[in-house]
Amino acid sequence: MSAEHTTADLAEALRISPTVRLGDDVEPGWRDAIAAWARSRDLEITGPEVTGRAATLAITTTPGNAAGAAWVHSPYAGVEHLAPALPGHVLLTRTTGTMPQRIAEYVLAWVLAERWQTARYVADSASATWDPSDPPAPPGRNGTVVVGTGAMGTAIARTLATLGHHVTGLSRSGRPDAPFDAVLPLGGTPDPSALDGLDGPGVDVLVLALPHTPQTTGLITPEFLRAFDGVHLVNIGRGSAVRTDTLLDAIATGHVRHATLDVTEEEPLGPSSPLWRRPEVTITPHVSGLTLPSDVVAGLDAALSQVRAGVRPTSAVALDRGY
Amino acid sequence: MSAEHTTADLAEALRISPTVRLGDDVEPGWRDAIAAWARSRDLEITGPEVTGRAATLAITTTPGNAAGAAWVHSPYAGVEHLAPALPGHVLLTRTTGTMPQRIAEYVLAWVLAERWQTARYVADSASATWDPSDPPAPPGRNGTVVVGTGAMGTAIARTLATLGHHVTGLSRSGRPDAPFDAVLPLGGTPDPSALDGLDGPGVDVLVLALPHTPQTTGLITPEFLRAFDGVHLVNIGRGSAVRTDTLLDAIATGHVRHATLDVTEEEPLGPSSPLWRRPEVTITPHVSGLTLPSDVVAGLDAALSQVRAGVRPTSAVALDRGY
Repeated sequence: MSAEHTTADLAEALRISPTVRLGDDVEPGWRDAIAAWARSRDLEITGPEVTGRAATLAITTTPGNAAGAAWVHSPYAGVEHLAPALPGHVLLTRTTGTMPQRIAEYVLAWVLAERWQTARYVADSASATWDPSDPPAPPGRNGTVVVGTGAMGTAIARTLATLGHHVTGLSRSGRPDAPFDAVLPLGGTPDPSALDGLDGPGVDVLVLALPHTPQTTGLITPEFLRAFDGVHLVNIGRGSAVRTDTLLDAIATGHVRHATLDVTEEEPLGPSSPLWRRPEVTITPHVSGLTLPSDVVAGLDAALSQVRAGVRPTSAVALDRGY
Repeated sequence: MSAEHTTADLAEALRISPTVRLGDDVEPGWRDAIAAWARSRDLEITGPEVTGRAATLAITTTPGNAAGAAWVHSPYAGVEHLAPALPGHVLLTRTTGTMPQRIAEYVLAWVLAERWQTARYVADSASATWDPSDPPAPPGRNGTVVVGTGAMGTAIARTLATLGHHVTGLSRSGRPDAPFDAVLPLGGTPDPSALDGLDGPGVDVLVLALPHTPQTTGLITPEFLRAFDGVHLVNIGRGSAVRTDTLLDAIATGHVRHATLDVTEEEPLGPSSPLWRRPEVTITPHVSGLTLPSDVVAGLDAALSQVRAGVRPTSAVALDRGY
């Protein structure tokens, strides 16, 4: 069944049964905003339970709450738990909202924090230490590599370009994309030889902006990181892209000088993780991509308008790719 | 004597006596670069001492080393010690170089560090604490006020505008200037009523980018700061613009929520200063405006070309204003 056919069927289903199930997993702070939006769009909230009567649209992050729905909307951008669990004919959409811009600002904040030694001066301030020695100097290299050229990677490229960085994107296709100075193909399997044309030693910042899929798991291999020399690695995608051991080895061997991780292999990161014990590692507890209620409502509304017009929503997820 | 007349006289003096004194106060790391530049431009280095034979150009930060020179070039941007000490007919130029851009990046770094709570997460990382509560949220206000619309203030405005900030400049003249959304007159004396049109409560960031002059000393009064509500104040100009007591009072009363100070009333800031004891204050030891040897040489070379062409250098300082 083509995607267009599915969307037309869904528009008809919504006309006949304009029903919405608001999953019990949706954050309490968002429920009122979503319910008010549904009413304003002549949609009926059927309650969170999966009852005899299936809703046409399920708003949820869990497959259990999605049962029977022809359309599932994730209030978040990450859909790794939903995508593999849904039947092929179901439309899955997700909220991205202003998240790419905020994630780009997070990356900019930590790139500059590392460059301007903010942690050092905050510590000096706390200990009444005036130490002008070895001040922050402009980096001798201005290359940035962004792995993943989706909405997040694109926003990051646009933002870091304003710092005067030369930004190279790595993507499956290697297709050129506007905010990147260059895009290189990453290949389905990790292969540093695919990185011909990448000036690894000229790169100061390496940003990982990958979704979690079977293909991206462990994509950042030891061989890949060996292409870089003292890079600041920032991961705002998913922790599965790089194994903790791989990262620690790359720090020990100097290929990575600092790692700022908003995502880790296990989350929450347990107190026994060796990542906590490295001064070269800064952990943030998955806070870069904060989604606001207004983002969820705006994303739902845009998708609904497209569905009702018979157009596949721009926020639709390809179930087989998982993003 | 008009400025043009002075420049023509100076060009003639340089032709007759192409001599340069490199003051003994100039940093050792810069001397070789400056000497190489002078040779490449057919200028003769006469040695650091003030001897019977005065050099036409003195490169120095101190009035003593400037004696007898028709042209004095400061390797730094700040000329508060030089300007008042020089005879009125002397041309004083200064190095700005890439400093405005670097200072703008410093301001961006600290604005984002405060917004993204980098100090909190660095501390959490050190104590193996995963705490996703109360994550960084977008600010509800996007106003920035920059006091001082010179080269530094202009670069800061351009940089913060890329964050989506509405940037208002405050200057003596109140003349509109490109990167500012608006420029308001500050008046010769501090006067909050001169700030009609400024939406103080909508302002999230207040940047002080003022040189040290008699007019700017204490310009940021308690009345001025009362126009703001929980602002992040960043001072990258001179510490004399705001008294330490005024700043501490504004923090205590909530008009200032955080202060990031690269400059302070006394420098180095002594260990007994109450500024060290406020968690709302971050001190950096005057490191935002690092000048590189390449900046000094580029600034000298541009000024020399202009002088030889009979044009007043763009880096010339008005001795009576002090900037």
